[in-house]
Amino acid sequence: MTIWLPTLMTATPQDGYELAVKMARVAIRMTQPDAEVRDRLRPVYAENADALIASSQVVATHFATVAAANDYWRDNR
Amino acid sequence: MTIWLPTLMTATPQDGYELAVKMARVAIRMTQPDAEVRDRLRPVYAENADALIASSQVVATHFATVAAANDYWRDNR
Amino acid sequence: MTIWLPTLMTATPQDGYELAVKMARVAIRMTQPDAEVRDRLRPVYAENADALIASSQVVATHFATVAAANDYWRDNR
Amino acid sequence: MTIWLPTLMTATPQDGYELAVKMARVAIRMTQPDAEVRDRLRPVYAENADALIASSQVVATHFATVAAANDYWRDNR
Amino acid sequence: MTIWLPTLMTATPQDGYELAVKMARVAIRMTQPDAEVRDRLRPVYAENADALIASSQVVATHFATVAAANDYWRDNR
Amino acid sequence: MTIWLPTLMTATPQDGYELAVKMARVAIRMTQPDAEVRDRLRPVYAENADALIASSQVVATHFATVAAANDYWRDNR
Repeated sequence: MTIWLPTLMTATPQDGYELAVKMARVAIRMTQPDAEVRDRLRPVYAENADALIASSQVVATHFATVAAANDYWRDNR
Repeated sequence: MTIWLPTLMTATPQDGYELAVKMARVAIRMTQPDAEVRDRLRPVYAENADALIASSQVVATHFATVAAANDYWRDNR
Repeated sequence: MTIWLPTLMTATPQDGYELAVKMARVAIRMTQPDAEVRDRLRPVYAENADALIASSQVVATHFATVAAANDYWRDNR
Repeated sequence: MTIWLPTLMTATPQDGYELAVKMARVAIRMTQPDAEVRDRLRPVYAENADALIASSQVVATHFATVAAANDYWRDNR
Repeated sequence: MTIWLPTLMTATPQDGYELAVKMARVAIRMTQPDAEVRDRLRPVYAENADALIASSQVVATHFATVAAANDYWRDNR
Repeated sequence: MTIWLPTLMTATPQDGYELAVKMARVAIRMTQPDAEVRDRLRPVYAENADALIASSQVVATHFATVAAANDYWRDNR
């Protein structure tokens, strides 16, 4: 497998948020490795309010980890 | 993409709470980039008790991160 | 908007718990600003076991934050 | 209201777990203050696997807070 | 009640994981004390993908607490 | 039982993420020990958007623990 998560460190909170979104997607890919099935499922949850909110929860959980790793980007101040 | 999350630091807990609400919304926007679809879904969850509570859970998770980043606004005392 | 969250500090754990309940409610209010709709939804989740448990989960998440902010009220000992 | 949560400190992990169960129940009571309605709902979730697991999740979240408050009862060693 | 949770300390991460599984089960037992009902419900969630994943979430939450209590077993290195 | 979790320490964040995926799977195996039943359930959640997102949430929770255990791989910098 290629390296997709070399570090949790990011330059800004926004970059950290984008990393959290990526981390949420990778778990989906690992549980359902078939890209064709994932492509079929994507519109299902992208147009479903409950699934969108649940995805947003996963992102929030990963963002908490990334933010702690970066000491909340306090040095940016 | 424009800068929407330059920092996790806020002046007060209430500002931090509003930032958490914003962070919860952005994940939705990233998973469903089509504004028209989002506009169609919004009334679905805004009038659905389960979806409202689930959204509230995402906000709570982000608020925990923002609060830690601000050292719980202890210096405000 | 009026100030509803000036601080996370509370005198006792029980006050902190009540603050957590309030914080859970505000997210609902921000997602569904129409008081009439909220009044219509309230009996739905107040009489639904799943929704009650989900609300309880949001309170638990906020309480964790409030408790950390107050250093778990250790100074009360 | 009577004092039901004077402290998060408990003598043992097991007492802490029982406190977490109590804390999970209080949120339910605050959202649905009518004891009669709660009595009606209890068998619903006590005999429903999903609701039981969801309740267990709330307890787990509160226990995390209580355990941190007690520094994981490390002094008990 | 017998002592079932005397300590959060375990010798290894794997023992900690098993403790987390046990802690998840006890909450179920406390909410539904009737063993016969629980025996009836068990196959329901053991053969239901959603319930299995939800149980797995409770275990993950308890494991986080147990791992922190053991300082992540860093002294084992 | 064989040793499947000797340590939470991993060389890189990506290895930590893979460990989190493994930890999520073990809880399923402990709740449903029958491999045949699990094999029957796997396609159910691998092709179901909600179940995929819920699995992703469990992974996120375990990853938070593994990341903290590794001090967020800060020494890798």
